[in-house]
Amino acid sequence: MNLPSQLITDAVEEFAKLPGIGRKTALRLVLHLLNQDKEAVATFGEKIIKMRNEIRFCQTCHNLSDGDQCSICANPARDHQTICIIENIRDVIAIENTNQFNGVYHVLGGVISPIEGIGPEDLHIDSLLKRASGGDVKEVIMGISPTIEGDTTIYYLSRKLDEFPVKITTIARGIAFGGELEYTDELTLARSIATRLPYDAHVANKE
Amino acid sequence: MNLPSQLITDAVEEFAKLPGIGRKTALRLVLHLLNQDKEAVATFGEKIIKMRNEIRFCQTCHNLSDGDQCSICANPARDHQTICIIENIRDVIAIENTNQFNGVYHVLGGVISPIEGIGPEDLHIDSLLKRASGGDVKEVIMGISPTIEGDTTIYYLSRKLDEFPVKITTIARGIAFGGELEYTDELTLARSIATRLPYDAHVANKE
Repeated sequence: MNLPSQLITDAVEEFAKLPGIGRKTALRLVLHLLNQDKEAVATFGEKIIKMRNEIRFCQTCHNLSDGDQCSICANPARDHQTICIIENIRDVIAIENTNQFNGVYHVLGGVISPIEGIGPEDLHIDSLLKRASGGDVKEVIMGISPTIEGDTTIYYLSRKLDEFPVKITTIARGIAFGGELEYTDELTLARSIATRLPYDAHVANKE
Repeated sequence: MNLPSQLITDAVEEFAKLPGIGRKTALRLVLHLLNQDKEAVATFGEKIIKMRNEIRFCQTCHNLSDGDQCSICANPARDHQTICIIENIRDVIAIENTNQFNGVYHVLGGVISPIEGIGPEDLHIDSLLKRASGGDVKEVIMGISPTIEGDTTIYYLSRKLDEFPVKITTIARGIAFGGELEYTDELTLARSIATRLPYDAHVANKE
């Protein structure tokens, strides 16, 4: 793509580095910004630079934070006895958006994956064990994706957490609401039958 | 969407102002940038601010430019006797990418549209007439979209240009290459038959 200006070319190339944005879309975004006020574009650039420069991580749960503690850990109305372990920050946002969970989180930073060279020492496990050892935590929910690596991680964590008097649970696995039985993979279907619950339990979950 | 940090919320909202980017995509882009070096993100923001602050318009053709003249008008290898009139900068880029045109451009800045309150005085018509009156221009190509407003604009321009010794042409209209006859609208099809060309002419165009 030949562009008539080096300034435009530079800006297009910056946008095109973002995931899911090709050069055509990048050009559309740049031409859109050219139609905006200089002040609006300056705000755009500055907010993004500021976000990257000033963002911090919660010292308790490793979630994104504006200060030492994230808004969830700092909230006294949350149930600090229940910790949900999740892989990354996107999972925190996904669970928060359900408005179903009032406990706190622990962001692991990934899952154990020998193929990708990620071992337990690369994850935020020490700080988790420290939290669990404090005596205040009653339940640890494994909110980790049920993949091979995820299940390995859950197994590893459950062994580590066994020495503390905490209840270990995992989020329910089964057929998604709105999902169709015939398109569900065999393993999920088989496990869904094996771990079936009384009908009342599902109704209670939906409330 | 509840986000754990005001910095993130601000950045997401800035991205979500861009066309075609919703809050979910904006969050994905922000989380991507969080994984990049601070320097890379600073470059991203600065290049965009610089682009908006320093971009200029070519004093000859109103194309985007880094200086007084765009790279096309400043290029002595281009044919300055042939001017292609187009609506906007995107059209310049589209034609340039075909590598089929070696003349120069004139960016009109839109088309005459009484409904949207755009009259001839809102477009770069005076500078076009000034260029045409210089005596150097031999051909003016109407590269304007064949819509009602576009055709009105072409008619208006052709009347204005009549007083100068320039040849006025329009880009060819008809069925797109790869298009199917049965799905082509009646007007295009009817005009395509009426303005048919000898077979040799199409072969020549494709070369």
